[in-house]
Amino acid sequence: MTITSEHPFDADTRIERVGAGTYTADVTDRFTALTGTPNGGYLLALCLRALGDELPFPDPLVASASFLRPPATAPAEIRTDVARAGRRTATGEARLLQDGREAVRVVATFTDLRAAGGRTLVLADPPRLPAPEQLASLLGGGSLPGVNITQHVEYRAAQPPGWAEGRPSGAPALEFWMRFKGGRDADPTALAFLVDAAAPAVLEIGEQASATMQLTVHLRARPAPGWLACRVSTRFVIGGYHEEDFEIWDSEGRLVAQSRQLALLLGG
Amino acid sequence: MTITSEHPFDADTRIERVGAGTYTADVTDRFTALTGTPNGGYLLALCLRALGDELPFPDPLVASASFLRPPATAPAEIRTDVARAGRRTATGEARLLQDGREAVRVVATFTDLRAAGGRTLVLADPPRLPAPEQLASLLGGGSLPGVNITQHVEYRAAQPPGWAEGRPSGAPALEFWMRFKGGRDADPTALAFLVDAAAPAVLEIGEQASATMQLTVHLRARPAPGWLACRVSTRFVIGGYHEEDFEIWDSEGRLVAQSRQLALLLGG
Repeated sequence: MTITSEHPFDADTRIERVGAGTYTADVTDRFTALTGTPNGGYLLALCLRALGDELPFPDPLVASASFLRPPATAPAEIRTDVARAGRRTATGEARLLQDGREAVRVVATFTDLRAAGGRTLVLADPPRLPAPEQLASLLGGGSLPGVNITQHVEYRAAQPPGWAEGRPSGAPALEFWMRFKGGRDADPTALAFLVDAAAPAVLEIGEQASATMQLTVHLRARPAPGWLACRVSTRFVIGGYHEEDFEIWDSEGRLVAQSRQLALLLGG
Repeated sequence: MTITSEHPFDADTRIERVGAGTYTADVTDRFTALTGTPNGGYLLALCLRALGDELPFPDPLVASASFLRPPATAPAEIRTDVARAGRRTATGEARLLQDGREAVRVVATFTDLRAAGGRTLVLADPPRLPAPEQLASLLGGGSLPGVNITQHVEYRAAQPPGWAEGRPSGAPALEFWMRFKGGRDADPTALAFLVDAAAPAVLEIGEQASATMQLTVHLRARPAPGWLACRVSTRFVIGGYHEEDFEIWDSEGRLVAQSRQLALLLGG
């Protein structure tokens, strides 16, 4: 019998180095999204784990993932190459393959976020939310069948989103709290997962699902422990494609991650 | 004597195929930015020209560029590979090298934007600007010494930006018209250049220059001919890094490009 207290996010993003720049990993079924397939942010986190092992800096600063084929719940190989390693940042690429076919390509730049000592000027406010302790968990603390991410991530908001009550509000913009269940705090790689770990904002305009084609995330600081305040919105649905912007602010009110994805509406 | 009416943007993004997936190009000095080096958006456009030659769709849909080393005014080699070519989109990568060293890495997905027939719902308005015919050109229709982009791109706004008058406004958010000089209309690849072809918004908070580290642009439609209405803003300067968001709307009031870059303040 193995007793482990490892969080599923850590267990399921574990990678093994099997050769120069090459890793193996298991893409599990514990982080599936609305579409029933492993979540894009989860695959991005896997690739960042491999790049974090290759590059001489601890924190992702910016990462872009292109989603090429639907991933499977199956073993994967991750092949990395280092594009440039400098004094302050390093950039590399990771390609995640399953059965020899590339599912995701990630280019990311790493740095030491603690060493970023330049000017700070923040011209936006964090989401205005009641304290998470005053709010009930969405999903009653449970999870959505098949959307296995919701087994490992908890969400709290002042009220349930309209789509969850069968009444999409028509306004694809939401604010809510998010954290891992089980007391695991977020780090920058976890933030790169979490920006893709909530329901798409387009559910509020009556859409059922959306497939991420490309996701770019900026990691701006290591988050303080605790709840994360999130803001998600979509403004431009054009010819079936839409962007989704996501911000994460930490428990001390600092912006820690900002992402934008391009996605394609499914069905309809 | 050669007489040509080719626009400098077309002449200077010309590529030559010299082998499987491999191209040569000249990085000229006609598109230098504030830093005196060739502009990042210009290098991105060069890479998109090569990918457009390799991929079976005409229009870039989303492209991410990682800027690895300062480019030189010198010949370049562009090496491409195709990650996936599907029924509706295709994704490839281009690496631009000078003297054997990689300056820029681009991953881009192409499609036929005319075939995007899904839902459209736009929840934001174009910049509110007087008609360009009612406005004077910034720079008096001339150009900024050393910033050679301004020889080929024209800008019009209701008033000059504060930084240009020595009085930064403190608000890094601007709206203005933009177009190529010489009557060349924009296409999606030109839009990927133009989102990086204006002065950084951080000049309005007293900064002198900023180096783009990563730029992601979404091309959402082929633009109508004529002037382009632009909106640029920065909200988060953290530890010397900042994002910059850029929107381009065409002369018919449609959003045609949306970009975000992560950049590092220089000096100071």
